[in-house]
Amino acid sequence: MRDAYHEELDAIGDGLVEMAGLVGSAMGRATAALLDGDLKLAESVIEADTRVDDLQRDLDDRAITLLARQQPVATDLRTVVTSLRVSADLERSGDLAQHIAKLARLRFPGRAVPRNLHRTILEMGQLAQRLMAQAAEVIVTKDVAEALKLESDDDRMDELHRMLFQHLLDGRWKHGVETAVDVTLIGRYYERFADHAVSVAQRVVYLVTGEYSDELPPGISPGQPA
Amino acid sequence: MRDAYHEELDAIGDGLVEMAGLVGSAMGRATAALLDGDLKLAESVIEADTRVDDLQRDLDDRAITLLARQQPVATDLRTVVTSLRVSADLERSGDLAQHIAKLARLRFPGRAVPRNLHRTILEMGQLAQRLMAQAAEVIVTKDVAEALKLESDDDRMDELHRMLFQHLLDGRWKHGVETAVDVTLIGRYYERFADHAVSVAQRVVYLVTGEYSDELPPGISPGQPA
Repeated sequence: MRDAYHEELDAIGDGLVEMAGLVGSAMGRATAALLDGDLKLAESVIEADTRVDDLQRDLDDRAITLLARQQPVATDLRTVVTSLRVSADLERSGDLAQHIAKLARLRFPGRAVPRNLHRTILEMGQLAQRLMAQAAEVIVTKDVAEALKLESDDDRMDELHRMLFQHLLDGRWKHGVETAVDVTLIGRYYERFADHAVSVAQRVVYLVTGEYSDELPPGISPGQPA
Repeated sequence: MRDAYHEELDAIGDGLVEMAGLVGSAMGRATAALLDGDLKLAESVIEADTRVDDLQRDLDDRAITLLARQQPVATDLRTVVTSLRVSADLERSGDLAQHIAKLARLRFPGRAVPRNLHRTILEMGQLAQRLMAQAAEVIVTKDVAEALKLESDDDRMDELHRMLFQHLLDGRWKHGVETAVDVTLIGRYYERFADHAVSVAQRVVYLVTGEYSDELPPGISPGQPA
């Protein structure tokens, strides 16, 4: 049986996984709202972000209470500190999904994304959601190989981001400056969201190995850090 | 006389102030590099960011060692946790200054910012640097009124950011899509940098009052949180 202290630590971990689930789902729905021009869906994403913020405050308060009452050392201490950092990444990821939903709302009944970029944005949205699901799994399993795999999977996001810029800058852009501005911001939001998912995984690597992922021997890392 | 523990806590505080100084200065120099098209200056800003990253790792390691060895409670515990959060804000601010320097380098020998936007960008750069200097002072003084003032000072950044968008979207934009993309990102970088300075101040408010700044009675807060 686990003691009350480790049960509380597990509960915080469960809360982080719940946060990751919420922000991953928010990003999926924000992408749908953006591409379909769905105002109701956009508004539901915007409102739902308070739940993520509340969860973060609650988890952080519990982590700090744990530090004060149990005064953990070694791995347990690193676990609590990591949970504070991970919750910050997840809270910020929720903001980014909310930003995308707000752009969808701002352009309603129009669309922020021109038709010929839908496929790229859809892939960015799906990849963002998948990376966050992987990050949630890494929180549970603490699997370093899986965590490092996120870094290489994130390369595809960088590639999609570059493709978006190529569309913007190939000299045949026909959608005007406002849409160029929207697409620039949207691309940035997806890329940052993916960075936070990678960051969650990197924090777990640090927790398990005591090393930052860019300090691990090259054989262990399948990809370059972002 | 202060004991070794409080001396170490002070030293961490000094380190945070040093980080804030470095990233504030980086933002000032990045802005100069951007507006003057100064490649050497841009490169020096880009390289100098490793110093900020190293400082963060060092400060965080010291904060975690302090948690493990001294097992602080109450205000001392909150101070250490706050230092971890503040260092994350400052590290990210350094990245944003670096992003601006990278854009200056990318467009060299050209300029990323059209002449008629120089004044707005210069003001954004100066305000960003000033907000970070205020944040550094708040770390030292722990003055809640000063911390809350940052939130209202940041309103000017939002205004400048809106002015930038008005230029982009008023239908008379003559600088092409590439420059529109650059200006969109640059505006976002300054705004985020200022948000992090505000966030540093808000964390100090939480440290001192135990309340998040948006939970304080309206009389105490001179402005709305970002």
